Amino acid sequence: MGDNLRRLTSHFSPLPFPVFQLSLLTLSFSSTAIFAQPAPRQYTEVASRITKKGLSEQQAFVMLTELTGTIGNRLSGSPQAAKAVEWGKHMMLKCGFDSVHLEAVTVPHWVRGKSERASILTGKLKRPLAVCALGGSIATPKKGIIAEVIEVHSLDEVKNLGDRAKGKIIFYNRPMDPTKVMTFEAYGGAVDQRGQGAIEAAKVGAVAALVRSMTLALDDVPHTGAMHYLDSIPKIPSATVSTIGANELSALLKSGKNVRVQLVLNCETLPDVESANVVGEIRGSEKPNEVIVIGGHLDSWDKGEGAHDDGAGSVQSMEALRLLKELGLKPKRTIRCVLFMNEENGLRGGKAYAATKHSPDEKHIAAIETDAGGFAPLGFGITADSVAFEKFRSFSGALEVIGADRIRNGGGGADISALGPAGVPLIGLMVESQRYFDYHHSNNDTIDKVNPRELELGAIALAIFSYEISEEGL
Amino acid sequence: MGDNLRRLTSHFSPLPFPVFQLSLLTLSFSSTAIFAQPAPRQYTEVASRITKKGLSEQQAFVMLTELTGTIGNRLSGSPQAAKAVEWGKHMMLKCGFDSVHLEAVTVPHWVRGKSERASILTGKLKRPLAVCALGGSIATPKKGIIAEVIEVHSLDEVKNLGDRAKGKIIFYNRPMDPTKVMTFEAYGGAVDQRGQGAIEAAKVGAVAALVRSMTLALDDVPHTGAMHYLDSIPKIPSATVSTIGANELSALLKSGKNVRVQLVLNCETLPDVESANVVGEIRGSEKPNEVIVIGGHLDSWDKGEGAHDDGAGSVQSMEALRLLKELGLKPKRTIRCVLFMNEENGLRGGKAYAATKHSPDEKHIAAIETDAGGFAPLGFGITADSVAFEKFRSFSGALEVIGADRIRNGGGGADISALGPAGVPLIGLMVESQRYFDYHHSNNDTIDKVNPRELELGAIALAIFSYEISEEGL
Repeated sequence: MGDNLRRLTSHFSPLPFPVFQLSLLTLSFSSTAIFAQPAPRQYTEVASRITKKGLSEQQAFVMLTELTGTIGNRLSGSPQAAKAVEWGKHMMLKCGFDSVHLEAVTVPHWVRGKSERASILTGKLKRPLAVCALGGSIATPKKGIIAEVIEVHSLDEVKNLGDRAKGKIIFYNRPMDPTKVMTFEAYGGAVDQRGQGAIEAAKVGAVAALVRSMTLALDDVPHTGAMHYLDSIPKIPSATVSTIGANELSALLKSGKNVRVQLVLNCETLPDVESANVVGEIRGSEKPNEVIVIGGHLDSWDKGEGAHDDGAGSVQSMEALRLLKELGLKPKRTIRCVLFMNEENGLRGGKAYAATKHSPDEKHIAAIETDAGGFAPLGFGITADSVAFEKFRSFSGALEVIGADRIRNGGGGADISALGPAGVPLIGLMVESQRYFDYHHSNNDTIDKVNPRELELGAIALAIFSYEISEEGL
Repeated sequence: MGDNLRRLTSHFSPLPFPVFQLSLLTLSFSSTAIFAQPAPRQYTEVASRITKKGLSEQQAFVMLTELTGTIGNRLSGSPQAAKAVEWGKHMMLKCGFDSVHLEAVTVPHWVRGKSERASILTGKLKRPLAVCALGGSIATPKKGIIAEVIEVHSLDEVKNLGDRAKGKIIFYNRPMDPTKVMTFEAYGGAVDQRGQGAIEAAKVGAVAALVRSMTLALDDVPHTGAMHYLDSIPKIPSATVSTIGANELSALLKSGKNVRVQLVLNCETLPDVESANVVGEIRGSEKPNEVIVIGGHLDSWDKGEGAHDDGAGSVQSMEALRLLKELGLKPKRTIRCVLFMNEENGLRGGKAYAATKHSPDEKHIAAIETDAGGFAPLGFGITADSVAFEKFRSFSGALEVIGADRIRNGGGGADISALGPAGVPLIGLMVESQRYFDYHHSNNDTIDKVNPRELELGAIALAIFSYEISEEGL
């Protein structure tokens, strides 16, 4: 998951983290003690059939292996993203959905460039520092930037640096809080440094921003992600440093030595590119105009293979519909799979989908996103009015078959968030999250980190829940 | 977890899987829709303090790294097992428990020997087959056994082979059922082949038994585990074959070719060895004679590092007490940590502990085992009468702080099972189980497969639950 949610929803709230994002990221288990209702027998039976077929075939992993193996990572605007769109369409056709089409989306096109590197310079010693550009950053001059480093732990601290910051590199080193049980909450509590760090650093005259990687793991792998500029503030290069590198840099700074960092980035933003969301559906047999969307995002960062983020959600969304289709279940309402483009650095796909009227009388009764990694599903988080919430909760009993019957108040996903203002209930698949940020936005996010059964169970959860919503309506 | 539970409890039931084991292994989520009760505020606050300290220090992983890194695997009777006993005692003393001591246990001493190997022979072609001896097996003759192979899928099928089996190798190839959501249920449904396969094969005159590895993963790593003999039946060598190897062998057999397997094992059973359980406790401040046991097993198989099975449970048990101790919580009743010896191939430690009267008026009010891998905790499975069950369930509300508030009817653990006949409530820590059998009893079970946060959350769950039991009593 990227942090685009915050930008998109920032008109809701003047808080640094708007209400919607808080509801998605920061609720703890203890505020959400709501569990499944007893399920009508027919849904438990359907759930068992879906589970049996899913676990015996495990096609989500087969699809994901094809995506990561033949295409790899697929940042918006890249040739791989274009291939992924064709692949998604091909896969949906192969799955035999009732209709499959592309919906055009114009996306930003940022490229990392050929080389990026950094070193710590102390006296005559030069040590390599594992870094990578944050998404959206400008390049450094060709020979790079060499400057002294000031370590800070918050955006506010930078504001108070005054003239001391001039010509320096600001090093944001506040870790994700390990004491948070919900890792997304820890992420939400640290990611402002990545998103806004360059802006605040530039305001006080700094020449670059370095940000500790958003991960709870101690390793030497930088984790990228979106960063932002304001037109009114000078743009300075911004990179992320591995947690081991951040600790080393911090220790050297504390030692009192004169510490400089050399940073070389070659990234740039090219003209926008035409891309697409991939849309396929099983048409409702009784109320086709009532639509349940299931989606993940097809784009990824340009590191690793985007296996968990969000190849997993993409294949789970398709697999959920495939399971329903192949079992001959004919949902009363339309269940639509959307592979959104550009979640990571623009959210253009989500916005475009929300802005599209697909038919005159179409009504979305639920939008479900899966973008928290292909881990064992726990249940669903739901953002809806209390009547709708209780209705959805009453559908969750059959999820007990796979132990994914935890229903939480609050949830959704970045891609579907643009449907929120129109009153569409927003639902996010909740998964076991402890390992997600070990892989997130980095070279660690590869297929070998995905367990085929955990991935499939997520698809099964989506199939069970969306089917019951389609049968019962809102 | 080994399969010793079945042997120990077999006097309870004439069924192939006795009642106790069924309650532990085969319940699905859907039969167990029982969740946490609202927690009294003081317990939620204690749970938050325990969680914060645990997640910020993550000492369970530090302990586990020391165990796997300096000692490695530690099969009963091995020099490493002896070292592990000393290490466990040292660690408990370091943690500052109120008392620490060893309790003698005499354990079996089976050794794998220097080499073991197998090949598939078809005509003049010889292909390597990934195998390892099952624990307890006798050796083959020095030059090995070469024989034709008959594939079967159940013990019953062997009984019907009659004379055809004479001089052959029986190849048990029924996979763990992938459609079971609970992997322990899939294990319970296949492990009779490993445990009893050599007995049934020998009854019909076979010369060896090969068993498909007990794993849901497709890989080339054999997964060992206990196998059994009867004194009245000839003993024949028995080995396990990787799932890839099993599939290859099966395909060759189906092709109609003359297929033979060469099997060479050098294992043997040496005289019993003196070993020990490691026992430490925080003495109850008000009712020290009422005891809550928390335990895992210190021994492992002689493959990998025994990281998940059950290094994880061993360090979690110690970490739970360490957290309580360092937070200055003074439980009213005694909380005792037991690192059991010899779970995997004899259960001698569990039996010895149950047979020991530690003080004249001692009463165990609960025994909790953690032996399902160091994965994210889901809650607890409880085997107790309905009054005690409801009482324990009323303690589970504070577990919501870490999302581990699922309470299931049925559960326990092999080491504590010997306490069952005396009426002690038996409790097992339930964890997310999808990946457990990917690692179980094999060279895959190494420290890199353990996530420090997931491991710690298990220790935190044990600390929270045992503390509330100690305060409230039964």
